[in-house]
Amino acid sequence: MAHESITSVQNPLIKRLHQLLEKKGREAQGRFLVEGAHLVEEALKSEAEVLTVLYDSERDMDAGCRQALNNHPHSVQVIAASAAVLAKLSETKSPQGIVAEVKKKQVNWDDWMTEKAAGQEGMLLLLLDEIQDPGNLGTILRTAEAAGVDGVVLGKGSVDLYNGKVMRSTMGALFRLPVFTRSLPEVADEWQAQGGQLLVSTLHEQSISYDAVPYAQKAAIVIGNEGRGVSDAMVERADYLVHIPIYGRAESLNAAVAAGVFVYEAQRKRKDRLI
Amino acid sequence: MAHESITSVQNPLIKRLHQLLEKKGREAQGRFLVEGAHLVEEALKSEAEVLTVLYDSERDMDAGCRQALNNHPHSVQVIAASAAVLAKLSETKSPQGIVAEVKKKQVNWDDWMTEKAAGQEGMLLLLLDEIQDPGNLGTILRTAEAAGVDGVVLGKGSVDLYNGKVMRSTMGALFRLPVFTRSLPEVADEWQAQGGQLLVSTLHEQSISYDAVPYAQKAAIVIGNEGRGVSDAMVERADYLVHIPIYGRAESLNAAVAAGVFVYEAQRKRKDRLI
Repeated sequence: MAHESITSVQNPLIKRLHQLLEKKGREAQGRFLVEGAHLVEEALKSEAEVLTVLYDSERDMDAGCRQALNNHPHSVQVIAASAAVLAKLSETKSPQGIVAEVKKKQVNWDDWMTEKAAGQEGMLLLLLDEIQDPGNLGTILRTAEAAGVDGVVLGKGSVDLYNGKVMRSTMGALFRLPVFTRSLPEVADEWQAQGGQLLVSTLHEQSISYDAVPYAQKAAIVIGNEGRGVSDAMVERADYLVHIPIYGRAESLNAAVAAGVFVYEAQRKRKDRLI
Repeated sequence: MAHESITSVQNPLIKRLHQLLEKKGREAQGRFLVEGAHLVEEALKSEAEVLTVLYDSERDMDAGCRQALNNHPHSVQVIAASAAVLAKLSETKSPQGIVAEVKKKQVNWDDWMTEKAAGQEGMLLLLLDEIQDPGNLGTILRTAEAAGVDGVVLGKGSVDLYNGKVMRSTMGALFRLPVFTRSLPEVADEWQAQGGQLLVSTLHEQSISYDAVPYAQKAAIVIGNEGRGVSDAMVERADYLVHIPIYGRAESLNAAVAAGVFVYEAQRKRKDRLI
């Protein structure tokens, strides 16, 4: 570990890292920030490439982070900094005293699909059609990883994956789950051409209940925008339009809850059939 | 409708309403605020007692709110105010130009339980053991109402039900769903004495999967704190300890997603058996 120490928010490194709090800066640099001991530890323990860790020189570094740093295969620049510097790189009211700079991971969609298709019989994808709320997107990724979804595709118009609030809501799932950004209609066409089933979540009048779907081993579930739902392009392509029944007078479910109920039912039914 | 207009944030009414942004003020006055056209309309259309509606004098009042106001059975004080006054009563970055003051509803638990037990054979309760995040609590209430849960009980140590972020996440469910604050162990004892089933969500090693539970028509589901899970007092009382399988490497599900998956499975199984 290096032992530099930074106390000025005008330090060029801090100014560069500060730009990563904005989407524009993340896109220009191809990097993003994660904040807090839990996320930093998850990043260090995953295959993500962690470039820099900054910690508050007046606090002890979290023991889990310290151990994960020692075991991390890449060389990481470790820097002590003042509380003011950490606050400058924080989006939360109570800065957690540790921040990491991580390189965005580029997985090639075509390679991934080819490898997946060759390696396993079944496959479950989650396609997200313009999810806008960062907390929802993060929670959906956390749920997808927990439920054993193989990969997630974000359509155009989604909130930025590397947004700080998305990161915090994932609880680290992004470091373990393949996530792609692609045109959803193109992905749907490709998927169906390969025999994949397309299940579109919607309150359309011709939809069937999520527990009546004949789930295929190769299935993709589409979850729509919080306000407008899924786009017409995806509704037109659906093998099944699917809803989750509303028994009360609510208009709809939260997008992350709907994704959870739908994906868990798909896994339950698909796994039953494998046994 | 009255047509006063308020432009000063020092106005005594505004100062009093401003106190409702804090828990202390809500408890002292027995009232709370809801912000935004959707929530104000839901409040006016429900059985909630709306006392005051303030709207931005420079914007048209939302048509849905205006109509709901006309149909509201109680007399409501309707006040035009400046954008600065609305901002003073807002917790969001972009004030929505309409706020309502609502009286807290007091439903008597014993009366409600007696009436429910007499009126319907089955019953599904959701018991929340120290949910801390306001967004989670609001989303759980929205989910519970959508899933047709009969009532929700908040244990001690929960985030305040009338917190603005809870309100916004409910999408109005609180105006339609009976919610009580009570000692959960006492509720559990009473429930079981009346033949109710107690299902406790936990990652305990002796737990069974949520889809293997023999759901009773009279069931209560317990969801625990985001970090610590359910309290020992509830684990000890459980008829079944229940988990949702984690297929990936995530440690857990978000509390609102877990509640959604669990409650929807309970409804599915309970309704199947009624047919």
